[in-house]
Amino acid sequence: MSLLVETNVETQAKEAKKAAKVVSLLSTEEKNSILLHIANTLESNVSHILEANNKDLDKGREKGYTEAYMDRLALSEDRIADFANGLREVAELEDPVGDILSDWTLENGLQVEKVRVPLGVIGMIYEARPNVTVDATGLALKSGNAIVLKGGSSAINSNQAIVDVIHKALKTTLIPAEAVQFIASTDRKATQELFTMKDHIDVLIPRGGASLINAVVENATVPVLETGVGNCHLYVDKDADVEKALSIVVNAKTDRPAVCNAAETLIVHEAWFHANKEALINMFKENGITVHGDDTVVETIPGAVKAGEEDWTNEYLSMDIAVKVVSDIDEAIDHIDEYGTKHSEAIITENKETASKFMKLVDAAAVYHNASTRFTDGGALGFGAEIGISTQKLHARGPMGLPALTTVKFQMTGNGQIR
Amino acid sequence: MSLLVETNVETQAKEAKKAAKVVSLLSTEEKNSILLHIANTLESNVSHILEANNKDLDKGREKGYTEAYMDRLALSEDRIADFANGLREVAELEDPVGDILSDWTLENGLQVEKVRVPLGVIGMIYEARPNVTVDATGLALKSGNAIVLKGGSSAINSNQAIVDVIHKALKTTLIPAEAVQFIASTDRKATQELFTMKDHIDVLIPRGGASLINAVVENATVPVLETGVGNCHLYVDKDADVEKALSIVVNAKTDRPAVCNAAETLIVHEAWFHANKEALINMFKENGITVHGDDTVVETIPGAVKAGEEDWTNEYLSMDIAVKVVSDIDEAIDHIDEYGTKHSEAIITENKETASKFMKLVDAAAVYHNASTRFTDGGALGFGAEIGISTQKLHARGPMGLPALTTVKFQMTGNGQIR
Repeated sequence: MSLLVETNVETQAKEAKKAAKVVSLLSTEEKNSILLHIANTLESNVSHILEANNKDLDKGREKGYTEAYMDRLALSEDRIADFANGLREVAELEDPVGDILSDWTLENGLQVEKVRVPLGVIGMIYEARPNVTVDATGLALKSGNAIVLKGGSSAINSNQAIVDVIHKALKTTLIPAEAVQFIASTDRKATQELFTMKDHIDVLIPRGGASLINAVVENATVPVLETGVGNCHLYVDKDADVEKALSIVVNAKTDRPAVCNAAETLIVHEAWFHANKEALINMFKENGITVHGDDTVVETIPGAVKAGEEDWTNEYLSMDIAVKVVSDIDEAIDHIDEYGTKHSEAIITENKETASKFMKLVDAAAVYHNASTRFTDGGALGFGAEIGISTQKLHARGPMGLPALTTVKFQMTGNGQIR
Repeated sequence: MSLLVETNVETQAKEAKKAAKVVSLLSTEEKNSILLHIANTLESNVSHILEANNKDLDKGREKGYTEAYMDRLALSEDRIADFANGLREVAELEDPVGDILSDWTLENGLQVEKVRVPLGVIGMIYEARPNVTVDATGLALKSGNAIVLKGGSSAINSNQAIVDVIHKALKTTLIPAEAVQFIASTDRKATQELFTMKDHIDVLIPRGGASLINAVVENATVPVLETGVGNCHLYVDKDADVEKALSIVVNAKTDRPAVCNAAETLIVHEAWFHANKEALINMFKENGITVHGDDTVVETIPGAVKAGEEDWTNEYLSMDIAVKVVSDIDEAIDHIDEYGTKHSEAIITENKETASKFMKLVDAAAVYHNASTRFTDGGALGFGAEIGISTQKLHARGPMGLPALTTVKFQMTGNGQIR
């Protein structure tokens, strides 16, 4: 059933570029009905996908992957139904393509329209979760783009089977199967080849751990949309409300510790820290949070271990937290400037002026006053499905929905105007 | 008078980052009055700048630079007055910083504001023209940013003198002189160091020839705003009006041949070509245009020389033009797909359907129907001063004004919201 048995990154990228023009011309209705058709085809081909998934799970068990990793890899009829429903939700989203962002006429009569158009070809480089194969394809097609998918080797059979089904679905539609390319290779060289396909791929989006993202950012000449690494901080100010502070720390740290908008470091004003140390100690204990901290923290909180440079720098993505005590807000902001990844940063305080200073001076996609960092998420903010959370400043910042997969074009209509 | 005698790229980038926070907090009125003060200070320090410029001109004569190059390098009282007036115009522009692009409240009461904020530190790498030193500084400061300037070695004395005057002006203002950094080095290493200052510089903007721009794109890990290379095409369709076609070719090619929105290749439908060859021959002759062409062109147009791969690929930036005869619009679009730089592409035709096909399928920042490509310009389009013309698809496309020097931030205000 596989359309593409051999892997040739350049050929596939070229095919995607050609197919992208076809996708770019489709109407919203045409694209939506194709997404619904893919959704139905996924549901009616569950056994093909689960069979392939079993191969990946077998390999994973052989390799001794962690339980959490195996869970991310495992598919089921329910999970595939979720994929299909995800596509149905994307079909419901507003289509940004063709939006006229502004239009005006010059004095000489030249008409100018600034129109939203698809980017062209999206290159998606991702790790374990096979759901990205479906989600990214849906978002790319809905926004009028073609996509080149390079998933992680541990999920290669599952991803290939999902793409097989997508290709099967596309056969009876206006979108050529070439618009969805799957790089069926576990060779690192294939990924590196994608880095330099500047003539055929318009943007690379890495989704995964910090090392994957850094490899793409450092080596790609194709423009990159950097996503996801969130070394998020909570700053509990001297004027913080105790109840709000504790509940926000618990939520931001423990609700889903493995996601990028979870908190990794807690910065506490010294006055508040000493006044509320019993409450803090109980909160950490009751929630099973392991504390790494500076000297003051280690002296005060039983069981806390001394934090080193790597504790301030890296995401734990677990029930661990780094805790630092500071003498004022400036010290907190300086720490965030040095170690933050410009994702999500929160202050807890009842003092509006202090909050305003924090919101203005902290450089991040999202800054919060008295709320959990967990809201930096396309779903939570009402954007619908997202292709990732941008931690860069150019093009798109924060949760990226369909508009992040488009660019603009100036369309000028004249009657012989010269300058 | 020079504030920065020694060059240390990393130290300067760090200083710029620190100063950027100060600039980011200023009001529009504060920034405008500082720009006007710099303008006045430039005008009252003309002799200091002209003295330095003479050193560059002397060196240029020694090195035997072309007349055109020397003209771009040369300053005068009038040109410095133009720089000052440029700053006064930037002061008049709307300040994008602080604009609330959207705001809404989640069901749980969390207030979300998407606000425009400065990018932080702009790195500007440019060639001969010293006016970029003033223009880029003005646009960066007006949009709340700091700037690190790395100009070409041939203008180093002029650029240093201009920055000296800017620093002198800033001394009595709220903007620290450190917000405008000048890399006073002719060593290529200094430029390369800028490429990797990802922690301190938010974006690099190269302005100059294709080789400079490619060097930055290929080597920088700092995000790049690619500007300026314009291998622009005019396609004269079989249904083109003769008078419009000829006047657009003359204007797009000869009005200012050295700029990026000038036409470099003329693609002509064979039917139109043969019907209007006499008019074409006269037009080229009367306007002193040298023709490079395919076999049909060489056979038809007296004096035309055979075009090779480099004629289709490179910008002439001179009174030369490459001419290709095609049998239909698809061949024209394929040629543009292969050789275009996604800057500005025009079709001349009286057939609206053909025009619409061209506008939809050609992938460029600006596509034109029956008008000269020369309108891809911030001034001509009414945006005011521009920092460059983006030929990339991410972040900004086409002429880049102040908004291209900003990003967004999600500001979330809550009352203890958790997820």
